[in-house]
Amino acid sequence: MTAQIISVGTELLLGDILNTNAQFLSRELAALGISVLQQHTVGDNHGRLEELVEEAKRRSDILIFTGGLGPTEDDLTKETVAACFHDALRFDEEAYRQIQDHYARTGRTMTPNNRKQAMVPVRGQKLPNSQGTAPGAWFEDDGCLAILMPGVPWEMEAMWKEQVYPRLCQKAGCVLHSLVLRVQGGESWIDSQVGHLFESENPTAAIYCKAGECIIRITARQADEESARKSCREYAQKFYEILGTAIYDEDVPGIEHTVIRLLTEKGKKAATAESCTGGLVAQRLTAVPGASEVFHFGFVTYADEAKHKLLGVSEHTLETCTAVSPETAAQMAAGAKSAAGADYAVSLTGIAGPGGGTPQRPVGLVYLGGACPEGVWVKKLMLGQRSRDVIRQWASQQALDLLRRMILGQPVPDARLYSPEEVEQSRQTPFES
Amino acid sequence: MTAQIISVGTELLLGDILNTNAQFLSRELAALGISVLQQHTVGDNHGRLEELVEEAKRRSDILIFTGGLGPTEDDLTKETVAACFHDALRFDEEAYRQIQDHYARTGRTMTPNNRKQAMVPVRGQKLPNSQGTAPGAWFEDDGCLAILMPGVPWEMEAMWKEQVYPRLCQKAGCVLHSLVLRVQGGESWIDSQVGHLFESENPTAAIYCKAGECIIRITARQADEESARKSCREYAQKFYEILGTAIYDEDVPGIEHTVIRLLTEKGKKAATAESCTGGLVAQRLTAVPGASEVFHFGFVTYADEAKHKLLGVSEHTLETCTAVSPETAAQMAAGAKSAAGADYAVSLTGIAGPGGGTPQRPVGLVYLGGACPEGVWVKKLMLGQRSRDVIRQWASQQALDLLRRMILGQPVPDARLYSPEEVEQSRQTPFES
Repeated sequence: MTAQIISVGTELLLGDILNTNAQFLSRELAALGISVLQQHTVGDNHGRLEELVEEAKRRSDILIFTGGLGPTEDDLTKETVAACFHDALRFDEEAYRQIQDHYARTGRTMTPNNRKQAMVPVRGQKLPNSQGTAPGAWFEDDGCLAILMPGVPWEMEAMWKEQVYPRLCQKAGCVLHSLVLRVQGGESWIDSQVGHLFESENPTAAIYCKAGECIIRITARQADEESARKSCREYAQKFYEILGTAIYDEDVPGIEHTVIRLLTEKGKKAATAESCTGGLVAQRLTAVPGASEVFHFGFVTYADEAKHKLLGVSEHTLETCTAVSPETAAQMAAGAKSAAGADYAVSLTGIAGPGGGTPQRPVGLVYLGGACPEGVWVKKLMLGQRSRDVIRQWASQQALDLLRRMILGQPVPDARLYSPEEVEQSRQTPFES
Repeated sequence: MTAQIISVGTELLLGDILNTNAQFLSRELAALGISVLQQHTVGDNHGRLEELVEEAKRRSDILIFTGGLGPTEDDLTKETVAACFHDALRFDEEAYRQIQDHYARTGRTMTPNNRKQAMVPVRGQKLPNSQGTAPGAWFEDDGCLAILMPGVPWEMEAMWKEQVYPRLCQKAGCVLHSLVLRVQGGESWIDSQVGHLFESENPTAAIYCKAGECIIRITARQADEESARKSCREYAQKFYEILGTAIYDEDVPGIEHTVIRLLTEKGKKAATAESCTGGLVAQRLTAVPGASEVFHFGFVTYADEAKHKLLGVSEHTLETCTAVSPETAAQMAAGAKSAAGADYAVSLTGIAGPGGGTPQRPVGLVYLGGACPEGVWVKKLMLGQRSRDVIRQWASQQALDLLRRMILGQPVPDARLYSPEEVEQSRQTPFES
């Protein structure tokens, strides 16, 4: 089956808003095994829309529209598509009542032109809108399907999940199940390890990369939910066999959620001590609801004075080793753990750029410290000539992974564990390298 | 003049990436006074691309392509468009040398198929790529123009600014000048004040809103740079007359840049004390290069114990007034200013949700404190039933605006200034309300 996505709205053609609907629908259709041939964006213009619909109808099995369902004269998607699909529109009492209810609930006054939104297909079906006023529509003609949804992203996504997706599954005689693996590491490393697993047709696996981590989405298409779930799980196992503990979690929005969950499960507390990331790690942790139970103290020690005063980093270390050194990172983490009375603490100190780099300490050099009951892990990152923002994101991701591994008692790759005595000694004498 | 935007790339049709290029180009073309009739996305398929180009060429003066200029067999935009525009391609030594240089600079090995990227129009023009390997192309045929640029957003944006935009201006016999006003406040308030100023045709003014602030972009089209600049400035003046000090800056990426600039200019230092935002304000400030000169200390005091221990908030206040109170906000700010030895400090304490709300202290209630030489400002925000993320963003924006107004010595709207003595007294007795 093939599809085309048609977004209607002059505000898209003016660049006032970003078309995220087209990406959402493309991804969902790909998962359903439906090929998207083209995406189009047109304005609220009857002639051009009609021409486009007639052409698209000749070429594809399914046309998916978003936008143009509003109450104003400009909004003419429904009328135009109805005509192209040899259907007509009728006034629907129930839809009108729902629109009235929606206005009453949100305390707004309804205008007469809202009657237009209550027009639904005569032969086709209406698609209820659980998030707004305009119902969607479903037309069929000559083996071709037209599905009309609102342009507001959350209304469209809800209608897709509640109304459209189940109907398309039924039509295709299948169900889908998806599973998302979150993997610590850069794209090229992950691709070199598991690149061959992205070739599969069912289940499919797709990779999306962010600073310092990748998201792998596995989707299986089967006759029933149980088989789809099983097929997903079996395919995920192939990734676990190769990537091991680099897979930090499943179906979470980010590693900070994993860390907060682990701390909560184990009844432990963590603290942060940040220089180059300036509060980014603390901010990510506290973005998770419930973080207040397990994260009480964060230190943003941007100046040497702050590192000394709040975290007890030795002035001798700051002078002789500088602030960007394994010794400073270790003392920051140890100091934060102790000042906060926490079970774990992570620290970051480095050169985020664009200025401040030297040949010995280039932009992108970051030291992480990780204090745990056994001592302090120190890890050196060379994040290269990336932007300040990407360096900070990448470093924060690595710090959260260090925290995760400490809580789980896992070894930390490419890092060294110093004993509490060695950290204490580093106040006078640098670590041996 | 009318244009169509054609994005080429199977990854777009699969939903793997979001099409930000179409929005960028639509906005730029609108500013140039060129109407975008349609946007299309097609895969790397010769037949479908050819059909689309032939149709689009009949309907518009300018076709703008992004993507499909890479070195692989799949990338066939240039060949297809050349044929539709009755042009041919030739091997270009200079372009080839630039590709070789780019590979040498980035330490990668060139493959034979990179020769394909050095093919340029015979009758048309090549468009140098300052950010990557693939040059763009410019074809003209029968009064219609085809402009081919890479799909990678930063390569495309650079080529647009350096090569395409100047040529289109010359063709249109005009220049553009833009100016961006950053305004503190929500969309409905700003729209109620200056909504009528968005109707103008030249200069145009467009508004984009983010949490707690809006961005107003004014663009003037004139025969020369000087007149365009003047026309922009005059139109901006109309906004200043109505919005006054709510306009916090021009042409900056965000209020944190304004705050760091002001602190640097005045040789002052600021500190932060955050509860509900958990480091977000510190993180925003330290995202600005050079922040280290004026921001030395940040405190993330998520627990009551941390507020007492690090900032000296009175235990009596935490018990009787609770952590989410004007007294706590004031003492946090005063404590941070003093502990950091800073000139200014801002504090935030509130309920970000989704849990933790009560009828007296609902989700979205946030108190800001602002310590300055004259005393401590306290401001109460009611951010309502928004998401945790939006509440935190909104609160951080307000805190940075409070900091800005203190540095400038401006009054803070809807806030109250307590004297140092009143703040001291609040450790024993709540503020009078």
